[in-house]
Amino acid sequence: MRAVAQWTVAGLQEQVDLCNDMGEGLELLPLVCDGATLGGIVKALAEELVGDGNGAFVFGDSDDGDNSHGGAVLLHPRLREASFEDRNAAVAATCDSLRERGVVTGWRDELVAVVPSYDADPAFLVERAAYPLLGCKGYGVHVNGYVEDGGGGGGEESLRLWIGTRAATKQTYPRLLDHIAAGQQPFGISPGENVVKECGEEAGVPEAIARGAKPASAISYRGVYGEGKGERVTNDVIMCYDIALPANFTPTPVDGEIEKFELMGVDDVLDRICAGAFKPNVALVTIDFLVRHGALTPELPGYLKLVGSLRQGSCS
Amino acid sequence: MRAVAQWTVAGLQEQVDLCNDMGEGLELLPLVCDGATLGGIVKALAEELVGDGNGAFVFGDSDDGDNSHGGAVLLHPRLREASFEDRNAAVAATCDSLRERGVVTGWRDELVAVVPSYDADPAFLVERAAYPLLGCKGYGVHVNGYVEDGGGGGGEESLRLWIGTRAATKQTYPRLLDHIAAGQQPFGISPGENVVKECGEEAGVPEAIARGAKPASAISYRGVYGEGKGERVTNDVIMCYDIALPANFTPTPVDGEIEKFELMGVDDVLDRICAGAFKPNVALVTIDFLVRHGALTPELPGYLKLVGSLRQGSCS
Repeated sequence: MRAVAQWTVAGLQEQVDLCNDMGEGLELLPLVCDGATLGGIVKALAEELVGDGNGAFVFGDSDDGDNSHGGAVLLHPRLREASFEDRNAAVAATCDSLRERGVVTGWRDELVAVVPSYDADPAFLVERAAYPLLGCKGYGVHVNGYVEDGGGGGGEESLRLWIGTRAATKQTYPRLLDHIAAGQQPFGISPGENVVKECGEEAGVPEAIARGAKPASAISYRGVYGEGKGERVTNDVIMCYDIALPANFTPTPVDGEIEKFELMGVDDVLDRICAGAFKPNVALVTIDFLVRHGALTPELPGYLKLVGSLRQGSCS
Repeated sequence: MRAVAQWTVAGLQEQVDLCNDMGEGLELLPLVCDGATLGGIVKALAEELVGDGNGAFVFGDSDDGDNSHGGAVLLHPRLREASFEDRNAAVAATCDSLRERGVVTGWRDELVAVVPSYDADPAFLVERAAYPLLGCKGYGVHVNGYVEDGGGGGGEESLRLWIGTRAATKQTYPRLLDHIAAGQQPFGISPGENVVKECGEEAGVPEAIARGAKPASAISYRGVYGEGKGERVTNDVIMCYDIALPANFTPTPVDGEIEKFELMGVDDVLDRICAGAFKPNVALVTIDFLVRHGALTPELPGYLKLVGSLRQGSCS
């Protein structure tokens, strides 16, 4: 038997707020391209990105004659009328230089589209490892795997979630709790196909089952992470999917990112979120799942504020 | 056979935007009480509310020494240290006067709490018919009644919704489409109990079934409605419930608010939302339901913006 549940809405709110902490007095320079603000860059990183000013980016006011942006990072004037391919090549060369100088680590050889909003034409593509420096909108898919079979021994309360433990060797958030599958949304593949791919790669979910995943929500957050020159703005939107897994199916770690999967009851999940045991953005997506499945009720003080806080920054 | 579906995400977005239209150049005076801004009042209505300045409200700058509010509507100085009961009595007297002068019509004899956020202590109570004048946060419960039984003849796509048609005699939004039950959240009863009450009163749902309604989301919107002196700010938060109804149950109009109930497929509902056939805030709650149930997907251009726009104003 598990102990009496300890979670509170205030404890859940704390985890949401952690993802939305913009710090204090941090100087951010907007990244402006084609007249749209694409992101916010911490000043020290902007200096690394611009370098000697002969790469893809320069300092300036604005590229559309509007000077209201003040100090901004702009695409180099020679690239403003350039083709998409030429822009991407110039950005790639700048990223190579950042890699050589040790500013960008963990090279992925995977391109991400830089966009003002999800459906907009990309301003350019950038290597995934360099992407976080730009403070641009990031998009991902997360999958809530759950079982609703009355087998939890709890009578009416039969909802349980499959929760993974991130491998101790993971560079980010080792040993924290995670979904059955999640990933950044790459350029050139649909979110639905990405979900099927991630379900297979991370949890061994056969395609026939993975295709049962349903889009159900989106969450967003905006915060500053890291310290000193590593400080960067995260401005993420996550497309949330739910997948009802058959009672006789057990997810299996495949690619070594996850150490083990466990089936957890709702109170157990809520307690561990409040204890900070979940990867922070996974906590947000899981809270959103639990709200949608009626595990939290409007009678709980702080409920509406919690629900309202799940889509901060720009959810688009 | 129904015709090919006509709905678009842009058409759904238009309905959401209708609820969030703040007009242009409208002069709003903040309603400030106990140092918190409770609402925004259209100037012509503020003059009616303050009247000769001997009622519950006066014009002023701010009641906490902070003059940043500019012209504001404040609680009368004599009421600032008064008891909750004395405040309510003074507000009731002012509302009576507004009723006599024909500014407030459709008296309900039902009190609503005026709060800066849902869980905060109410600043005072006000008659429901006078409440819209204040432009304060309003709270309601809406219930999505649905059937998921594979009986729709559409193969996999078995989700159908019970949709009501508002009576032709309704003062507001006659003949528009509505949920099986919805209502303002009154003072002194929990949202969950309110749902059970409204389900019984509006659709004849027996308590045993109504108790199966689950809280699943919240939506919010802020807009200006009406014309001239009737212009007022709506600043609403709706607690959204879902109820899976048994296939053999048919909701029945009880209190005359609804003319008939019909079971509609997802495409039919989406088409009618785009055609403006739904009561506007019911359209929002229904879009939220359809997002949560996977009827809309991230592959549709405009999906994320639509989802992000379902909680505008202050959802708390």
